[in-house]
Amino acid sequence: MPLSEPAAETPVLWDSLSWPELAALIEGGLDTVMLPVGATEQHGPHLPLGMDTLAALAVTHGASARTGIPVLPPISVGCSLGHTARWPGTLSLRPGTLARVVTDIAEWLHESGIRRLVMINGHVTNHAPLRCALEEIRHDFRDMRVALRSLWDLSPDIHAAYHDDAVNFHANRAETALVMAVRPDLVRLDLATDQPDRGRDAVFSYRVDQETASGVVGIPTLATVPEGEALVEGCITALVDLLDRARLERPPIDMEEPR
Amino acid sequence: MPLSEPAAETPVLWDSLSWPELAALIEGGLDTVMLPVGATEQHGPHLPLGMDTLAALAVTHGASARTGIPVLPPISVGCSLGHTARWPGTLSLRPGTLARVVTDIAEWLHESGIRRLVMINGHVTNHAPLRCALEEIRHDFRDMRVALRSLWDLSPDIHAAYHDDAVNFHANRAETALVMAVRPDLVRLDLATDQPDRGRDAVFSYRVDQETASGVVGIPTLATVPEGEALVEGCITALVDLLDRARLERPPIDMEEPR
Amino acid sequence: MPLSEPAAETPVLWDSLSWPELAALIEGGLDTVMLPVGATEQHGPHLPLGMDTLAALAVTHGASARTGIPVLPPISVGCSLGHTARWPGTLSLRPGTLARVVTDIAEWLHESGIRRLVMINGHVTNHAPLRCALEEIRHDFRDMRVALRSLWDLSPDIHAAYHDDAVNFHANRAETALVMAVRPDLVRLDLATDQPDRGRDAVFSYRVDQETASGVVGIPTLATVPEGEALVEGCITALVDLLDRARLERPPIDMEEPR
Amino acid sequence: MPLSEPAAETPVLWDSLSWPELAALIEGGLDTVMLPVGATEQHGPHLPLGMDTLAALAVTHGASARTGIPVLPPISVGCSLGHTARWPGTLSLRPGTLARVVTDIAEWLHESGIRRLVMINGHVTNHAPLRCALEEIRHDFRDMRVALRSLWDLSPDIHAAYHDDAVNFHANRAETALVMAVRPDLVRLDLATDQPDRGRDAVFSYRVDQETASGVVGIPTLATVPEGEALVEGCITALVDLLDRARLERPPIDMEEPR
Amino acid sequence: MPLSEPAAETPVLWDSLSWPELAALIEGGLDTVMLPVGATEQHGPHLPLGMDTLAALAVTHGASARTGIPVLPPISVGCSLGHTARWPGTLSLRPGTLARVVTDIAEWLHESGIRRLVMINGHVTNHAPLRCALEEIRHDFRDMRVALRSLWDLSPDIHAAYHDDAVNFHANRAETALVMAVRPDLVRLDLATDQPDRGRDAVFSYRVDQETASGVVGIPTLATVPEGEALVEGCITALVDLLDRARLERPPIDMEEPR
Amino acid sequence: MPLSEPAAETPVLWDSLSWPELAALIEGGLDTVMLPVGATEQHGPHLPLGMDTLAALAVTHGASARTGIPVLPPISVGCSLGHTARWPGTLSLRPGTLARVVTDIAEWLHESGIRRLVMINGHVTNHAPLRCALEEIRHDFRDMRVALRSLWDLSPDIHAAYHDDAVNFHANRAETALVMAVRPDLVRLDLATDQPDRGRDAVFSYRVDQETASGVVGIPTLATVPEGEALVEGCITALVDLLDRARLERPPIDMEEPR
Repeated sequence: MPLSEPAAETPVLWDSLSWPELAALIEGGLDTVMLPVGATEQHGPHLPLGMDTLAALAVTHGASARTGIPVLPPISVGCSLGHTARWPGTLSLRPGTLARVVTDIAEWLHESGIRRLVMINGHVTNHAPLRCALEEIRHDFRDMRVALRSLWDLSPDIHAAYHDDAVNFHANRAETALVMAVRPDLVRLDLATDQPDRGRDAVFSYRVDQETASGVVGIPTLATVPEGEALVEGCITALVDLLDRARLERPPIDMEEPR
Repeated sequence: MPLSEPAAETPVLWDSLSWPELAALIEGGLDTVMLPVGATEQHGPHLPLGMDTLAALAVTHGASARTGIPVLPPISVGCSLGHTARWPGTLSLRPGTLARVVTDIAEWLHESGIRRLVMINGHVTNHAPLRCALEEIRHDFRDMRVALRSLWDLSPDIHAAYHDDAVNFHANRAETALVMAVRPDLVRLDLATDQPDRGRDAVFSYRVDQETASGVVGIPTLATVPEGEALVEGCITALVDLLDRARLERPPIDMEEPR
Repeated sequence: MPLSEPAAETPVLWDSLSWPELAALIEGGLDTVMLPVGATEQHGPHLPLGMDTLAALAVTHGASARTGIPVLPPISVGCSLGHTARWPGTLSLRPGTLARVVTDIAEWLHESGIRRLVMINGHVTNHAPLRCALEEIRHDFRDMRVALRSLWDLSPDIHAAYHDDAVNFHANRAETALVMAVRPDLVRLDLATDQPDRGRDAVFSYRVDQETASGVVGIPTLATVPEGEALVEGCITALVDLLDRARLERPPIDMEEPR
Repeated sequence: MPLSEPAAETPVLWDSLSWPELAALIEGGLDTVMLPVGATEQHGPHLPLGMDTLAALAVTHGASARTGIPVLPPISVGCSLGHTARWPGTLSLRPGTLARVVTDIAEWLHESGIRRLVMINGHVTNHAPLRCALEEIRHDFRDMRVALRSLWDLSPDIHAAYHDDAVNFHANRAETALVMAVRPDLVRLDLATDQPDRGRDAVFSYRVDQETASGVVGIPTLATVPEGEALVEGCITALVDLLDRARLERPPIDMEEPR
Repeated sequence: MPLSEPAAETPVLWDSLSWPELAALIEGGLDTVMLPVGATEQHGPHLPLGMDTLAALAVTHGASARTGIPVLPPISVGCSLGHTARWPGTLSLRPGTLARVVTDIAEWLHESGIRRLVMINGHVTNHAPLRCALEEIRHDFRDMRVALRSLWDLSPDIHAAYHDDAVNFHANRAETALVMAVRPDLVRLDLATDQPDRGRDAVFSYRVDQETASGVVGIPTLATVPEGEALVEGCITALVDLLDRARLERPPIDMEEPR
Repeated sequence: MPLSEPAAETPVLWDSLSWPELAALIEGGLDTVMLPVGATEQHGPHLPLGMDTLAALAVTHGASARTGIPVLPPISVGCSLGHTARWPGTLSLRPGTLARVVTDIAEWLHESGIRRLVMINGHVTNHAPLRCALEEIRHDFRDMRVALRSLWDLSPDIHAAYHDDAVNFHANRAETALVMAVRPDLVRLDLATDQPDRGRDAVFSYRVDQETASGVVGIPTLATVPEGEALVEGCITALVDLLDRARLERPPIDMEEPR
């Protein structure tokens, strides 16, 4: 898919395509896809359980609409073992289960002719299992490239925005603003409670129930719609840039690769 | 949640709730949820890869809107090992991976206070891994009830509709009609090709690539919107009936159970 | 092995053959085997724990004697997680363990030159793990055909006989009659107790301890030797027919296959 | 089960008992069972593939007839990874699969009230996976005792008989004699070929295909029925002695144990 | 172990203690240990395969000598899947294997009375599997605290030193200097070759064979002994500080915890 | 590596080599390595927890110094499930974890060009998991030879020395003497307590906490430095002999092998 191709106007969703439509794209040079990975877990009294999936979808769909890179169906239940039964609603895969889901999917992407997989992660503790999957995929499929980016790592500015009020942020100002921008109907800002990041300098990685009583770490009451809109736009822009480079990137050392 | 409670007007999506909202529902008696399980796999030249997920979502969301029973985020990649690389687009989990995803989720549902899990399956070869998960859940969590229904098993009429043109149906008349009813924009009926069910009397369980060249088994060209609408409505009605019984059902032999 | 070959007079047991005898059979065209899968679980006060294995063996041995198709050693402990410690004697594999046993065996059958595996199942909750194994085998060994039949699925008449007194039958009239026909010494009809199938319309899949106090679901006291003999003969006849088709069956779409 | 109880005249087979019969035995003090573990693998040109299962069954059934200790259904496919496709017929579980089968079974034995498990092994390379299972069982079930004996370890005399013509014996004089004693119809002594044990002093553990072309290691042509009968009788006698001690044995350090 | 306790003069090695010595320490309040995790992988033409283990040992032993916190035996083979057969010598565990090793060990540490586990990691791609282990440990053992630090994360200065010449550093200036300080006999600086970090801005996570031909990423020829000594001392000092906080740290939200 | 090559003066440690140094050795004919496998477990009141690793290292390093065969980094935590929390300090892998560690390593050794793996085991209950690994390696890598020897199996004399005071020896005379020879600083002979081997004739394989209160089985108080020195020297000599044969050994049946 040449860079000069005019951008799609709507996201290209892998599961909305028929197989001949996908075959035609691959025939035309497509070999890159995005995999959004979210979570289903408590996000304080004011945000929906699906916040992380929602964020990963908003950003990947936005980038797909501008680049035509397809988005795979999201992984909606991630690894949220740090949460506990104190707050109902959290669902979690074991780290090994999540990694296995991704490697199983990668095997079939490879079968379909995809060679560049960009995982866009919306939840902190998904990172390690996804990275384990990355290690296995690039080892087992020598011609497969894999990238893993969490939303907050898409640019230095975005990183700063996410961590502004908390290092171990959760349902904080940035996350709240993001949902206010994309699904305002799911935010109850009147119920938001702030909690300082008491664990930011901790030696140990505590569970969330050891860090907060409300489920919040950060200052969500400061969130506004405009900053949420700016955050989403910033993420999409950064991801589009990443994808533009991804489509053409060659390895630092350029060896012939089996197709 | 008493039966007399007025039906919700929109589906209750687990991931759209905040934890206090869910806690209030559970406090109020909710102990039942639906888990839609779909697939991402080729469905002939005229239907989208996400057909099975789409169907499971249409039916569970419809039933949730009438009953207020929450719907969990769908499992969008199921077990599609019968498909192959002949048609790009199929993604599959190994049977053991799918079963593990469900048992991991069930453990957290149990933590949240859910005791009745109704799996609504939209894809034939998901059934065995989901049944394996059911076996493990009811063994490991003695007070958890699990039900597993595929869409075509929701009533005798629906079963007949699904199997009308093919026993080993795939992207057939019923499935095509269903998508025409709920997502007409994703159907290319002009590209549909019919293929008789050559494997209906086979001894062996062949892979799909051994049964069809187009990816279709059945007569999709006969599909119409009205029959699709009737099929969806029939599925929702049958599922609502099932849920009404599920919410109050006691085991055949009534033993005290741990909560 | 041509169809015209005169039927064996006794069953051909894989484990009674020496390797050169088996090699000669394969050289002569044999590429089909039967794998009987049973269970070790309570079958009420009047039937032996090994009832399901016994049934699977009676039928497969009978069919082997008439067709010369070898019978593998049975899997005698299946997946009986629905049973519990209420009744001593049940042994069970986890679903994943049972599936793994079968896929391990299949790999070696393939090494030996076998390409057609017919699993004959005598126990309801074995079906899902065996089906998972089937999915994996036909995916991993592209030229391997696998069939899975439970005894009660061998013909419509047999299905009717099994379900006559109970949908969720267990140690019922049909199973009791079957053992009376093949191992009368192991039946204590005087101890049989009837219990109606209270769970036949249940939404949820309950464990056996939630469905029966005696371990029986059905009306075993009605069982007679003649109906048991007819049932066994019916199963054997239906299986012989299935095998006759299996030996020559080609996939619906006839592609060249690697050997 | 007191030692003074008169010996059974026929073996007590776990799977031939009904659950109330087993419950009565356990009520009466039974807490010991035997698990015969065999194999399905090539045993030279003159012995059946099921030789090892056959031997384990002959000995455990014999000992059960004299002691009344029940015999579980055999594990008929063991770990035979050392064999290869050179000789058709061998079936094998991976070591981890075999270990898992045994630990799954042990969990259910424990549920049934059994506290003493005696594994009787008929195949060399089963030993390590069975020992791994033993390690896990005694760790996970603190009040469960497990013993593991291979046939050739039942007494010094038996050990000598087995290793008389080969250290790495396979289908040798002793094994051949044993089958001649218990199933003479399955021995083709005229086809037996001798091969010296060339690997007896090897540093490495070679696969069987690296040690023999015929599948034999040893001098089977020397086998006679009388020595087979003596071997079987010796094994049974030694096992009966072992069981007599097993039923009453207390740990070297006598701590209270949970039941 | 009170902070006022005089520092040990030599490292306390877990495996050099007898069980009564360890019991006495635990009786005296010890509940913290360090687990050094290294790797066995190519480190360019001038450094030993065990570089990462060596570094983790130098730093943990140094910190132990000053604090008396015991050091567990190192994990010497980590997760090095990014390396390939291009350079002989690399050994690697799969990510899931490494995680399992750590969770197995943690279970036994918990049995011994240890409640604070500090993992000190010397190899980049160990991080994700170790983090997965951390997630599982804090979930499965509610009163266990786990910390994970890579050497380069012990302080901002150390981070800067490691990344001075390369973001994707490997066998670079800092690592070379470190070995020159602690095991000069294992460095062949004359063979060192420099390679710029060509992949620092890459989208994808390439394998090492796609990033470097020599195995080096960075400018090792600049390394000196004094800077290595400073690096080691800096790491030890930072780790001692971390351990001093770790021993007394309470969770941000102070809930009663089971012991 | 030809036999005539002059012996190294110091052990060749795999992890002390750079990759070009290892590549040169392999180029020169090296295809054999030793893997020492130890344990971390209680060894009575007088010996260190790392006794078994220490012994395996002393012997393999000694043999390497005389033969130039490299020693891999040791596996320091083995399978010690027989031990319990009665004595703090024991760390254990599950049997399947230990086997997996070894098969993962073997895959990479094979990649490096190693074809002869000699495992030297210092701990009794490691044997079964290591043997399981051996089975898998020789099956999955057809041209890989694997040997497994426990220290006490290196010669009949050594076997006798180890079992002199106890069959189920643990921290006994031989083990104590061995540590007195190689690490006298780690032995507290004054604290040694003797305990006869009460379980030597037991039917069941009891856990260590069922066999000894002190953690000792045997008569360690008899140990002397000279007998320890003789034991170590005997082990090294026997291992050198084994390695000399291993380097040149061909399979009993000499088939062409893939490299």
